[in-house]
Formats: sequence, structure tokens, C-alpha cells
Amino acid sequence: MRFATIRTGAGTTAARLDGASLIPLGAADAGELLARGDACSAPARPGAAPVPVAEADFAPLVTSPSKVICVGLNYRTHIMETGRELPEYPTLFAKFAETLMGAKDDLELPAVSEKVDWEVELAVVIGSPVYRGDRDSALAAIGGYATSNDVSMRDWQRRTLQWQAGKMFRHSTPVGPYLVTPDEVDHARDLEIGCEVDGEVMQRARTSDLLFTPADVVAYASQAITLRPGDLLLTGTTGGVGDARKPPVYLKPGQVLRSYVEGLGECVNHCVAEKPAR
Amino acid sequence: MRFATIRTGAGTTAARLDGASLIPLGAADAGELLARGDACSAPARPGAAPVPVAEADFAPLVTSPSKVICVGLNYRTHIMETGRELPEYPTLFAKFAETLMGAKDDLELPAVSEKVDWEVELAVVIGSPVYRGDRDSALAAIGGYATSNDVSMRDWQRRTLQWQAGKMFRHSTPVGPYLVTPDEVDHARDLEIGCEVDGEVMQRARTSDLLFTPADVVAYASQAITLRPGDLLLTGTTGGVGDARKPPVYLKPGQVLRSYVEGLGECVNHCVAEKPAR
Repeated sequence: MRFATIRTGAGTTAARLDGASLIPLGAADAGELLARGDACSAPARPGAAPVPVAEADFAPLVTSPSKVICVGLNYRTHIMETGRELPEYPTLFAKFAETLMGAKDDLELPAVSEKVDWEVELAVVIGSPVYRGDRDSALAAIGGYATSNDVSMRDWQRRTLQWQAGKMFRHSTPVGPYLVTPDEVDHARDLEIGCEVDGEVMQRARTSDLLFTPADVVAYASQAITLRPGDLLLTGTTGGVGDARKPPVYLKPGQVLRSYVEGLGECVNHCVAEKPAR
Repeated sequence: MRFATIRTGAGTTAARLDGASLIPLGAADAGELLARGDACSAPARPGAAPVPVAEADFAPLVTSPSKVICVGLNYRTHIMETGRELPEYPTLFAKFAETLMGAKDDLELPAVSEKVDWEVELAVVIGSPVYRGDRDSALAAIGGYATSNDVSMRDWQRRTLQWQAGKMFRHSTPVGPYLVTPDEVDHARDLEIGCEVDGEVMQRARTSDLLFTPADVVAYASQAITLRPGDLLLTGTTGGVGDARKPPVYLKPGQVLRSYVEGLGECVNHCVAEKPAR
């Protein structure tokens, strides 16, 4: 099954994809839907009409996750081509809920950054609580998968040894449009993942090349803290980011950033100059 | 004025310190109280009796901040004694709301870590929203100050270049007991800050030695994302952490960790072996 979170005149609603329509459900977002534990049998939201996908306004798939945990470099081929050793542990960092954006939202390029770069990633959404999980219980705790892009402000990211400042800009990380249940995509074991800018292929890989699988990452993070329904994990990106190109290239207003994972749907974000503060 | 967040039979409540009593107020925690904008004139919670401080069960001062942003090394004297240059930008990283704990809670030493270490820090609580703030508007957005300890699992922190894994353990970062309004402590410009283990002084410094002041840190983080009432910033620690001692020392069950900032109150946390998962 496929779920989404869409904006309506009265906040957001979770919805189930049914053909070319989204059926609003009685939860505010995909995270709340997962927390209720009945996503696949959730009844339609009373009085809410189906929304044609073509007209849907996608919110971040999860609007208020208690945790957004990201992984650094994680594709084997890409790690090896940079000449590094394969790491023993995943490199983790964090984002905030307000850093997320909808799958089709405009990507506002912050006026304070000159190096906005792309990082297409497979996102994992937690479906049930897990603490100190092993790989099996971690896998069982995964509620679904989604497409995302860990858009990064490289100038801010590189100012210090910790990447956080370049990873937390508001409305900068598209996640969605769909939460796809694990059964539909064989737990994302071998899907094509890619990113294009104005139609030019910038990144392309397969999730089978992930060094730390989704279950590995969930199990690892859960050693420290309980992961809860709606919590989001971004599993890292592959080669082809703008910052590593010679010469480096970054996103400019007017460009279109397309991020996809096979079977999960695509984020399409038009890059625009930042609007005044809201 | 001084505020706290205390646990009651029915969840948590914000409270105002009045002599040796805490007067429950109509907000669930200090963050919600600040968001309402009337902290200093908030009426008492109807029907809730004052709680003697000696009997209070302090919750994390803010129970569900949308952001917890921490600063790395930030005390001038300590940076210079390590032989480093003074950095141009603050080093940021993040914690999760569930990483916080109450000021007097037991500190459970995770079974999966052998290197649990202390980092006493001045905490800043945001009182009003700020985005792209300069130093003045950042200062005006600060709702108050508190004592905290960025307890760190050094083994996990050092496994990769990013510290996140060692900084996000559940219930590991005491914050409180009080939110003290800026007027009471002159915006924490020159307060003694310190940390003791079993009565032995491990860290002691003055906040006047901070390279990046609270206003600097708030202004910097607000370039990326809006900081909101209840958001928490930990401003970095000073010399004397266990990991840098020769030989290194770490917390053990049975020890008492005391963290204080002059005028803000103290966190006193008994170290205990981890209890079974809850």
C-alpha cells in the first residue's frame, strides 16, 4: 500500500493511494497513521472527498517526527571510489522536523548560502517502537520507505567538523510523496535510486549497494534511543553530488531537482530564490 | 523569576518558584509557558496545590522542544590550552527531546557504553520566535537560562567523525531544575559554572569565558531555521571532562554527578546501572 500526507484547507491529512486518487484518512499525517497501528485498514476520513493525485499538495510525509536521523556516506562503490576504507559503524547526524518539506514544494535556496547541493536518499519511516533492536526486530519495526533528498548547504556544513549547521535549514529536505509499505518493494533491498538536475543525471545507484542496510541503521540508532512510529531515518547518499564535481556545481534558481527511488515515487522541487521570512 | 517543570500524578506542569514552593501554572511545561507569552503573569493552575521544592519531582525543563542544538568546545581558555586556534564559527550538533532528563533524575549508565562522561553546560531556552536574528534580536528572543549537562558516551561519539551517536542516548541530558529569566542573572554574562563527581571538582569556569555568547549561538543557528519558544540551546563545555584526563575516567554506578551554574540551580544525578528497557 501507498500512503501520503497532503495539505488541505484545514491542516494536513494522511491519505491512502487508490488508483489516481488519494483517499483522506482519519490521521493528520503518515506518522500518526503508523502510530495508530492500523494503517492498512484505516477507514476513510468522514466527509472528506478523494483528491486526484494530480491536484494533491503533498506535505512532508511525516510532519512532526520526534527524530530525524541521517547517515553519512553509505554506498559501497562510492566509498571505495573515494579511496576510503569501508567504515565499521554508520556515521549519524540529525535534522529537525521543520527542516523537512513536501515532495513537490519549491526548494527555496537560502540567501545566506552559495553552495546548495543535492543528496538523494532512501528514507525509512518507523512503524512500531524499537529499542536495542537486533537486525530482525529492526526490520520488523520499519513501517515503510520513501524518497528523500538530504539537500545540504556545503558552505555551512564545512565551517566546522560537525556537519549540523549545513543540514538543518528550514524547508530544505523533501520527503515523499509516498510511504510505501515494505511488502511492495521487498524492503527496498534492490531499487534504483537517482537524482537529476534539469533532466541531467547527477546520481544513480542501487540500494543493494548500501553498506548499512535500513535494518542495520535502525538497529544501530535504536541502541541509543527508542525509535517511534513516524521517526525518519535517511540512509545516506551515493556519488555524484555537486560539491565533488570538478568544477563544483550547486543549485541555482530556476533549476528543477528530481529525486527518485524506483517504486517509491519522485520528489520534484523547483529551485527558487528565497522569499522574505515568514 | 524562576520556573520549573514538575511531574504530577497527571503528567507534567509548569510551575513558578515562590519561596520554598512551586506554584503549578496552566501549562504542561516551561516551553508551553514561554510559547503563551505571559510566563511572568501566568495564573496558578486552578485546584493545584503548591508543591514544596523539597518534594518536587523535576521533569526535563522543556519536555518536547522542537529543536535541541548544542555547541562543541566554546570556552576560550580551554580551547587555547588544547593548542587549537579560536574557531570562527560555533560547532553545532543536535539532540532529541527524549535525550533530556530531569535535574534530579537518576542517570542510567547505558549497558552498551563503557565511557559515559560529563560536560556541564549553560542552557538557553528560547522565549520568542527568531529567524535570521542579529545579536540584539537573538538576545531579545532568549526566554531564560538553565543548568544542564551534555552527558556523552565517548565510545559511541568517537566511532565516526560525527558525534551524534554518542550524544543522543535516551534520558541522558539533565536540564534544570529552573528556568531563570534573563533579568535575574544579567543574561548569564559572568556566572560560575562547574561540575563535581562525588564532591570532587571536575570542571569549573566562568560563562564570561564563552567564545560564542548565548546571543551569538542563537543568532547563528537562527540563520538556518526559526528557533521557537521552548527550543533549547546548550552552549558548550569547558575543560575537565573525564575523557581528557590522564588516565581517562568515566562515570560509574553509585557516583553522584553534580552540575551547577551560579544563580541557576544545580542538577544532581545519581549514576545507576541501566534498568531493563521500558
